[in-house]
Amino acid sequence: MPVDVSKLSGGSLIIAWQLKDKNVLLVGGGDVAAGRIENILIADARITLIAPRSGLHPQTKAYIDATPRITYHDRTFAGPEDLAGVDMVLTAIDDVETSREICAMSRALKIPTNVADIPPSCDFYFGSQVKRLPLQIMISTNGKGPRLAHLIRKKIEDSLPAGIENAIERVGELRTKLRERAPGVGGDLGKKRMGWMTDVCNTWELDDLALLDDAAIAKLLDDGWEKGEVPRPDEIFSTAKRAGQIQLPFSSLVPMAVGFFVGVACTAAAVHRLSARR
Amino acid sequence: MPVDVSKLSGGSLIIAWQLKDKNVLLVGGGDVAAGRIENILIADARITLIAPRSGLHPQTKAYIDATPRITYHDRTFAGPEDLAGVDMVLTAIDDVETSREICAMSRALKIPTNVADIPPSCDFYFGSQVKRLPLQIMISTNGKGPRLAHLIRKKIEDSLPAGIENAIERVGELRTKLRERAPGVGGDLGKKRMGWMTDVCNTWELDDLALLDDAAIAKLLDDGWEKGEVPRPDEIFSTAKRAGQIQLPFSSLVPMAVGFFVGVACTAAAVHRLSARR
Repeated sequence: MPVDVSKLSGGSLIIAWQLKDKNVLLVGGGDVAAGRIENILIADARITLIAPRSGLHPQTKAYIDATPRITYHDRTFAGPEDLAGVDMVLTAIDDVETSREICAMSRALKIPTNVADIPPSCDFYFGSQVKRLPLQIMISTNGKGPRLAHLIRKKIEDSLPAGIENAIERVGELRTKLRERAPGVGGDLGKKRMGWMTDVCNTWELDDLALLDDAAIAKLLDDGWEKGEVPRPDEIFSTAKRAGQIQLPFSSLVPMAVGFFVGVACTAAAVHRLSARR
Repeated sequence: MPVDVSKLSGGSLIIAWQLKDKNVLLVGGGDVAAGRIENILIADARITLIAPRSGLHPQTKAYIDATPRITYHDRTFAGPEDLAGVDMVLTAIDDVETSREICAMSRALKIPTNVADIPPSCDFYFGSQVKRLPLQIMISTNGKGPRLAHLIRKKIEDSLPAGIENAIERVGELRTKLRERAPGVGGDLGKKRMGWMTDVCNTWELDDLALLDDAAIAKLLDDGWEKGEVPRPDEIFSTAKRAGQIQLPFSSLVPMAVGFFVGVACTAAAVHRLSARR
């Protein structure tokens, strides 16, 4: 089985970095910093923000006021002492020289670092992101077309079904409850659990998964897992619950309408020709 | 402008880690390791692979044979000396105890580490990924529904226009050529460059961007950038080049066909009723 590795090049290692209860140092308080703050808070980290108050973006100010998870210092970066106990460094300031100095110091301490606008000083880059927690989707063009990444993000956002985040949460809950019923790591039971979860996710629509409340999860485990089967959603839910829930995505409605009117027009024209001949 | 930070939680920091010419230690050679190898090669890193030959997956073997970027050692992990000069550690072995020991050693050296199947020993997780280099899209459900992440990846893959990677490459080339014409970092010129690129990406279809060869890029810069305008694709390309290139995505064809036949049926029924009345 020979493989062609010649095309395996030119990318990044896209990863979900874990920051829960970690300390992130953010130097700078402008609009780029405001975007960084949202990304860091989502990851459950604490932020130390160093930036003169005069340069704070309104959104940055709002974040500082909104959460005790940000410790704010109204000053510029002071030196290596600011890096003590820090797990990640992000800078978003206009001063290129200071940015490079901070980068050198934090790299010497092996702290992962991102310096806005100076790619060679970055251990990692950010990309366009869809945030529908717990779902996160990141689009990177590896620096070739940030604007296209933004367009692709919008397309993906528009195409995601409403309530997909609920479906994922409910499936997470189902997995947790399943593990309580059939505990243990790995082995045959682990494989059976994984297989059954896969079957549920493959046969149920996202809309139905999103409806899984505690009662429905219990019923699905009783009537499904215990019997080695995957019940249909209509076997688990009352008819009332699913009523009105089936929706055509908007993206299908426009071509369907176009098709309808073309169909009407064609048939009308054909009928007209036939009548004219008679 | 008060912000609600209560929902900013439960996620990860999704980043594009840079590994060009870095050294990645991979311990283990099974099917999970084979997947890791592809991800690392894409990011242009070198790999040191430590795993007894008896446990190598055929795909792992194929990678070892295919590229000098993998240095293979037919043995088990030997100790801290295996971590010298290493920039990232990935383990994919069944031995939980050894995995945890490797993790402890590499964390002591502040080397970013991922241990397959043991989340608490991971600085970062992997997710489902669309790889259409230079485009990379990563889908994470933050551990709630890996199977759903896989389904979402397939949906995104199906919805991406054919040739999107070419469009991104060509836009990257256009940016490079534009920077050669109007060099310099930041300032008003930087803003003007970014604004013009944004206008091009917003007004041109991906299909047209993918057609940008060197001649078309030169013409677009001459007739567009130099005059502060964004020419239409038909002003840049000969008619022949664009002919037959406009395609409806398959996802539109089905609803359009459904609409067409419903339209035909409705009109025929209406005509039939009218004729019957006469």
